Amino acid sequence: MLAVIMKQFGGPEVLEIGEVQTPQPGPGEVLVRVRATALNRADLLQRRGLYPPPPGASEILGLEMAGDVEALGPGVSSVSVGDRVAALLPGGGYAQYAVVPAGMLIRLPDTLSYEQGAAIPETFLTAYLNLFVLGRLSPGETVLVHAGASGVGTSAIQLIRLAGAHSIVTAGSADKIAKCLELGAKAGWNYHDGSFVDFVRRETDGRGADIIFDFVGAPYFHDNLRALAVDGRLIVIGTMGGTKVDGFDLGQILAKRQQIIGTALRSRSLEAKIELTAAFVAFAYDALAKGEIAPVIDQVYDWREVRAAHERMEANQNIGKIVLRVTE
Amino acid sequence: MLAVIMKQFGGPEVLEIGEVQTPQPGPGEVLVRVRATALNRADLLQRRGLYPPPPGASEILGLEMAGDVEALGPGVSSVSVGDRVAALLPGGGYAQYAVVPAGMLIRLPDTLSYEQGAAIPETFLTAYLNLFVLGRLSPGETVLVHAGASGVGTSAIQLIRLAGAHSIVTAGSADKIAKCLELGAKAGWNYHDGSFVDFVRRETDGRGADIIFDFVGAPYFHDNLRALAVDGRLIVIGTMGGTKVDGFDLGQILAKRQQIIGTALRSRSLEAKIELTAAFVAFAYDALAKGEIAPVIDQVYDWREVRAAHERMEANQNIGKIVLRVTE
Repeated sequence: MLAVIMKQFGGPEVLEIGEVQTPQPGPGEVLVRVRATALNRADLLQRRGLYPPPPGASEILGLEMAGDVEALGPGVSSVSVGDRVAALLPGGGYAQYAVVPAGMLIRLPDTLSYEQGAAIPETFLTAYLNLFVLGRLSPGETVLVHAGASGVGTSAIQLIRLAGAHSIVTAGSADKIAKCLELGAKAGWNYHDGSFVDFVRRETDGRGADIIFDFVGAPYFHDNLRALAVDGRLIVIGTMGGTKVDGFDLGQILAKRQQIIGTALRSRSLEAKIELTAAFVAFAYDALAKGEIAPVIDQVYDWREVRAAHERMEANQNIGKIVLRVTE
Repeated sequence: MLAVIMKQFGGPEVLEIGEVQTPQPGPGEVLVRVRATALNRADLLQRRGLYPPPPGASEILGLEMAGDVEALGPGVSSVSVGDRVAALLPGGGYAQYAVVPAGMLIRLPDTLSYEQGAAIPETFLTAYLNLFVLGRLSPGETVLVHAGASGVGTSAIQLIRLAGAHSIVTAGSADKIAKCLELGAKAGWNYHDGSFVDFVRRETDGRGADIIFDFVGAPYFHDNLRALAVDGRLIVIGTMGGTKVDGFDLGQILAKRQQIIGTALRSRSLEAKIELTAAFVAFAYDALAKGEIAPVIDQVYDWREVRAAHERMEANQNIGKIVLRVTE
């Protein structure tokens, strides 16, 4: 089959289409003909050699895809050949075919395209995990979503709305903030205008945010704790700005009963991911099928343009997901 | 009524018995004739003026007590005059009478004395909250309990056993460790022998502890994270050794999906405490009544000896709870 391959680590220019062996489904697995895949920030790190795939996973980039069931491995009865599906992957999405454990498949509603399907798993499952499983979001609570216009951000804003809770966001441009408000965010703050702490206090009548979704790490850490309510949960999903924190005051998190939760989706066990997928589908499938929530797609590229797609994400220009259509 | 009063903040010598006004039960409240109360570390801080009682709470020391229902406020039907009860208090336990919201009362099984009853609420509710509500302990997991021979420690060890999970402890003497093993701990480490990290790794086949109960704070912080398993929860209950942490690596808690949870019982809302009390009673009442779990009592003092009782806790000599019998 064809796949996006890399002969060395480096910038977008190392990506090319090449011939590799087609994977075969084992017991409980399904072979999917990939029609679309989507970019994640982890792909950029992996391309640079900074984020090796977990043991046993494909070396090919791509943490999610949508397509058609092509063949069933032994013991699979939950789907049929020809079914339209999407799934989270530990790798291998930038390819004509991918093998997926049957329990990981999300049936694609007829109302959604493959491009939309490919844009769902990573961001919506990440948002669901962190909002509900780890964050225990309750109706009426307020979530501060940093990088509100990112893939995870735009998914989180919609799930928060669906749960009867409130979101406020930070982002780096007026366009991005406008998109967040359109999706249901209550208010937005442009981080070029300074610290978000007063903004959060103002928007929460001084209480602070009940949950904070953070991708920045160390540079935001102290302000995050200042902006966090009593009983608040700071969810650390990324550390793009750095990891080392000095002057962390444990007395503060004790006095305010705050939690700091480190989280990652990719490294979780298959069992945990299957459970998460099932919980997400139960919560969100109807709303997805009816269009009440939808993945936000920034741009769709032919997979032959994979380098341009990576450049766009690296330049931080996207609002929502960048999708690759697998046209061969 | 008589109560333990303080005319100024200071050492144990400021404590004396004096006359104060007897409290009156309001709607939904109960007046309890206190038969026994118990010491908590917070009492020592409050005595020194370092831990003011929450707004509206009694100025009198004492976060728990057991006794007999003396009178009912308007609208109370869940208990009757004469019932033997125990309860967590926001203050006011070192006295002949205390007023308690009816929802906070724990019925005292006939098999337990007042002294035992007074030794239950603070440690068992703290352990229950942190193990199950915040820590989400699962059967088969391992909890590292620092200060294993403390009141919270001895209660935690027993609840962990009751839940089908494992505990390992640190403590400062062979006697204390022996007591922990007798209560069900799997292994113990004397912290005078150095860092506990290798001990924890050895006892968990290299995985680390799933939950850590910490009272020490900053000096243990880095070793706690080293000793914590993937998906582990570090529960910070106290910061007796200091609060300021430098060199905290957010990348580590992200890679290992770890949580740092600041926690306190006293500052929670009455509603949350009533819910917690009900959950604890549902989980543990039968085991308490049958003697499968029991508060560990270090020593019972007549309340006229309250200064000696405080001195003993301040010297860190106790194994389990120090109880005051209210003899007047």
